[in-house]
Amino acid sequence: MKRIAVLTTGGDAPGMNAAIRAVVRYATNKNIEVMGVFRGWWGLINEELKLFNHRSVSGIINQGGTILKTQRCLEFRTAEGQRRAYETIKKYSIEGLIIIGGNGSFTAGHEFYKKYKVPCIGIAASIDNDINGIDVTIGSDTAINTALAAIDNIRDTATSMERIFVVEVMGRESGYIALEVALAAGCEDVIIPEKQFDLSAMCHEIVNGNIKGKISWIIVVAEGAGKAEEIARQISEHTGLETRAVVLGHIQRGGRPTAASRIIALNLGEAAVECLLNGQTDKAVGIAKGEIVTVDFEFAIKKKDLRVDRLYNLIKVLT
Amino acid sequence: MKRIAVLTTGGDAPGMNAAIRAVVRYATNKNIEVMGVFRGWWGLINEELKLFNHRSVSGIINQGGTILKTQRCLEFRTAEGQRRAYETIKKYSIEGLIIIGGNGSFTAGHEFYKKYKVPCIGIAASIDNDINGIDVTIGSDTAINTALAAIDNIRDTATSMERIFVVEVMGRESGYIALEVALAAGCEDVIIPEKQFDLSAMCHEIVNGNIKGKISWIIVVAEGAGKAEEIARQISEHTGLETRAVVLGHIQRGGRPTAASRIIALNLGEAAVECLLNGQTDKAVGIAKGEIVTVDFEFAIKKKDLRVDRLYNLIKVLT
Amino acid sequence: MKRIAVLTTGGDAPGMNAAIRAVVRYATNKNIEVMGVFRGWWGLINEELKLFNHRSVSGIINQGGTILKTQRCLEFRTAEGQRRAYETIKKYSIEGLIIIGGNGSFTAGHEFYKKYKVPCIGIAASIDNDINGIDVTIGSDTAINTALAAIDNIRDTATSMERIFVVEVMGRESGYIALEVALAAGCEDVIIPEKQFDLSAMCHEIVNGNIKGKISWIIVVAEGAGKAEEIARQISEHTGLETRAVVLGHIQRGGRPTAASRIIALNLGEAAVECLLNGQTDKAVGIAKGEIVTVDFEFAIKKKDLRVDRLYNLIKVLT
Amino acid sequence: MKRIAVLTTGGDAPGMNAAIRAVVRYATNKNIEVMGVFRGWWGLINEELKLFNHRSVSGIINQGGTILKTQRCLEFRTAEGQRRAYETIKKYSIEGLIIIGGNGSFTAGHEFYKKYKVPCIGIAASIDNDINGIDVTIGSDTAINTALAAIDNIRDTATSMERIFVVEVMGRESGYIALEVALAAGCEDVIIPEKQFDLSAMCHEIVNGNIKGKISWIIVVAEGAGKAEEIARQISEHTGLETRAVVLGHIQRGGRPTAASRIIALNLGEAAVECLLNGQTDKAVGIAKGEIVTVDFEFAIKKKDLRVDRLYNLIKVLT
Repeated sequence: MKRIAVLTTGGDAPGMNAAIRAVVRYATNKNIEVMGVFRGWWGLINEELKLFNHRSVSGIINQGGTILKTQRCLEFRTAEGQRRAYETIKKYSIEGLIIIGGNGSFTAGHEFYKKYKVPCIGIAASIDNDINGIDVTIGSDTAINTALAAIDNIRDTATSMERIFVVEVMGRESGYIALEVALAAGCEDVIIPEKQFDLSAMCHEIVNGNIKGKISWIIVVAEGAGKAEEIARQISEHTGLETRAVVLGHIQRGGRPTAASRIIALNLGEAAVECLLNGQTDKAVGIAKGEIVTVDFEFAIKKKDLRVDRLYNLIKVLT
Repeated sequence: MKRIAVLTTGGDAPGMNAAIRAVVRYATNKNIEVMGVFRGWWGLINEELKLFNHRSVSGIINQGGTILKTQRCLEFRTAEGQRRAYETIKKYSIEGLIIIGGNGSFTAGHEFYKKYKVPCIGIAASIDNDINGIDVTIGSDTAINTALAAIDNIRDTATSMERIFVVEVMGRESGYIALEVALAAGCEDVIIPEKQFDLSAMCHEIVNGNIKGKISWIIVVAEGAGKAEEIARQISEHTGLETRAVVLGHIQRGGRPTAASRIIALNLGEAAVECLLNGQTDKAVGIAKGEIVTVDFEFAIKKKDLRVDRLYNLIKVLT
Repeated sequence: MKRIAVLTTGGDAPGMNAAIRAVVRYATNKNIEVMGVFRGWWGLINEELKLFNHRSVSGIINQGGTILKTQRCLEFRTAEGQRRAYETIKKYSIEGLIIIGGNGSFTAGHEFYKKYKVPCIGIAASIDNDINGIDVTIGSDTAINTALAAIDNIRDTATSMERIFVVEVMGRESGYIALEVALAAGCEDVIIPEKQFDLSAMCHEIVNGNIKGKISWIIVVAEGAGKAEEIARQISEHTGLETRAVVLGHIQRGGRPTAASRIIALNLGEAAVECLLNGQTDKAVGIAKGEIVTVDFEFAIKKKDLRVDRLYNLIKVLT
Repeated sequence: MKRIAVLTTGGDAPGMNAAIRAVVRYATNKNIEVMGVFRGWWGLINEELKLFNHRSVSGIINQGGTILKTQRCLEFRTAEGQRRAYETIKKYSIEGLIIIGGNGSFTAGHEFYKKYKVPCIGIAASIDNDINGIDVTIGSDTAINTALAAIDNIRDTATSMERIFVVEVMGRESGYIALEVALAAGCEDVIIPEKQFDLSAMCHEIVNGNIKGKISWIIVVAEGAGKAEEIARQISEHTGLETRAVVLGHIQRGGRPTAASRIIALNLGEAAVECLLNGQTDKAVGIAKGEIVTVDFEFAIKKKDLRVDRLYNLIKVLT
């Protein structure tokens, strides 16, 4: 193997740059050339790529986002788009692809590999942490810490003004971030897609707590389980208590990566290059049970079955 | 003067606790007793107050919010509410009030003083920084840094995904936070109540920039000048470019106070006690032109005339 | 089991308060009373303890340090000290002890259990992360992130002024923090107790790099492997290049715990109470391979055999 | 005026990059070309400079350090060095110099102007904040907040382990940082060059406090007023209480600039260009009493007379 390419696709996640750094430096150290592809699949289709060297990735290890930029590329879903991407790969003698991203990225990689047999290895990077078979992705620790800091701030006002807050965090199909953050911030309740939610029971509890002197509540809701604005309105109506909504939104996506997000990224960068060198393909690398693992793309893109019961109950017990 | 009372009213601001600490310790050091009143005026009306000592304010200097809690108290706007508050003051032999808060707090303090002649000194604390005659209030530096960190995060995604973001920051009647944050974060545009805003001109500029290769924009909007969601929708419609809205909301109100917010608070705590000792009343203490100043309540509560032109133009020039 | 006691001993670690919160609330939820013991073993010897309830642990989840305070207690190493501690335990009808701390704490707990048969469960909390059989302790993630932020800062000056820095981090017998931080910060070299270190080879490399244009270096050294001041002096002498030393010291021990440190603490708090309820004793709970595990005290206090080779090499390759 | 040059000299300070950005963009907006000079005076002597444009300063506003790099350049103190610098200036048709730095930088600028009459404007950037006639420099707010966060961390351990800490902060000739930080962190004492210091009186106070139950102390010392290690040793000897030293050192110099450091930098960048355009020279721009001011180099480099009494006393009263 003489030359590979690396790209970032889907939503950006803090630590992607550290992964790019590791791929480029680890591979060049093994005398393999690395091309950086810009804007994900779009860059392959449109020949936006260039040879990277050791210096190309200097000073990025602690930067959020991705220097390769990223896009959600509809064109790559077409046969024509994939064909053009493949032509770029042939033209530049690229013998393997490293795809840094999440489920969507791996789905595309899987299809592309099936069709054109270009060796593809994915690196699990996604703040949602929703990749099957993988416990921790690049970026999720940073996103959780960002959301946590925001809720710590909100707690100051919740306590001082004795108010109820409903805070919406990321997680369209998974309650992962919501659970971790609600637990770590000592929140009073959490609403996630994996669990039935009973608003009137919650309001009943709030009113009961209120009678006993508890007036400040923070309820975390995963974006896939409800809209903070609407839930706040309903709580306010049912309980007569002032309730505010906060949607953390895109502040959770960026920022200086935490130690964990960087360390995972650097380890996975090495692992991905090693996979290609060992003739592996159609797989993602990630962390599970504290170790680096490889997972078939086909398995990785299945719906992750997050076991939520223990943490969910712990949140309620510790309130 | 043998005994005074301190309360926090209106929205909480980071640094209020440092101000409480300074009032309590500076006064007790001068052999004046300090009572802490809970929940602002409500606590005076309902006799929720207690004697504080040196230890009562230990370990709070770096905590956001207010250990005295705060409320917006409608009852105090009635003659009956004020009368009951006055009775509490007499009952506990309180000879002076220190009111930590913003415009609303000072308006109430001014009325109360006129009626019952209890010496009242305000300490300017408000993240909006909208108190007339005062350049910097307790909390505003912290709020600006919190908003700035959030926008630095958003910048990572704006750059990586090449998107437009509209970020709504606090400031119902004032563009202060919006201006400072937009300048410090290197934002492409800012929308504030003090300035006419031309959406179609902005969209024109965005499209022009886009043609020249500039794809990522962050536009800051003060909450009093427009809704981020609505502006993002319009930009998206007019330009055809993907535009997202983020509302920073209550995360700006809490958090560990910055050095500046704490130092101002400690200085103003001392100044407020000194004012009472010197027989002053019906005034607020704050920082103007880098010095501690006193401002009559009547002047402080007038609409502040923020000179925005220079910063507004600088933002545009530096983009 | 009707009543247990909880104490923190040894050096404080961020997340200890979250663990205390979890122990108190989880146990009281199971109708078990919890006594908080102050200043570790000293508090048992001197009868400094009190009954805690749900409210006793409010508002501490995001605070560094330990509200129970901690000491290194020499008296407990004597038979007389242990006897007095046991008398306190009998007097207050305490049926189980939860000891939050590190190796020293577990050694003491092990001895105490052997002698007096009071059920003892340890919770692994130590920024050094040096407990055998346990991958991650409470506090280590926070300490690493604190050190990382400090080195990110130093990098700004190293790059701007083109200097060499030697940064000493915690780790008397273990290179764990040094390795993680050096990797995450993109440092040029790392000196740890587990690896032979060749200063003249390093200086040779620095001079070689310098000739090729590389002038800025950050070298991380674990405190157990050398003194930053001395190493900096030697590098300066051998290479003729300006070299500065920074000793991070105690700033690594405190601070707001990260999400990971809090979540581990809350999970281990629950696990420790469950262990006592299930009749377990003489064991520590901790995280290994991403799961909650129990480890015999006798095993936990053995010298941990940290596998350093892969990370050590990765640091060198990625430089 | 058609072309100017900008350089950073002396120690780096957070916000220098924001100042560079403002100089480049404000000047180019006025149709003046800007050359960036690398490594301060060294770059002028050795012709290391290049034309900057709008894009050259993208993405640097929130980065610590300086992209222009900086050096303490001995050669520029010689007549030959200055002559060569002047030749570069003539060769590249540079009509004005903007020097971002502190006292040393302004002294050099003043001499150079006197000799070669090249218009020179300084921008006050220095974490020590020791420039005469100027209240706040670029970087000082960031340095203070960094030191404050470090001491907040240390407070956790000081309180939990009930120990005494002596923390050394920057400030060779000025107690500015020490005073601000000691006040903001609620420290028990502060040792600065401007004030006589009586160790035995301090030890007496500590022992007295100890008898009354106060066991945790943090004493801040400016590096110019004593060595933390030595003071800690003496306190330990005199009081018999465990005392630790921490030297914050270079972590105070770098890091993401705070809002204040950035906003000052952007304003001063504009002001410096305006000064050159208005024919001013031999002056520094800075902030005094909340306004942008210009100060003659000759005045700026005089020893600043910091009025310390009020803050010094306030620290003692609030302890």
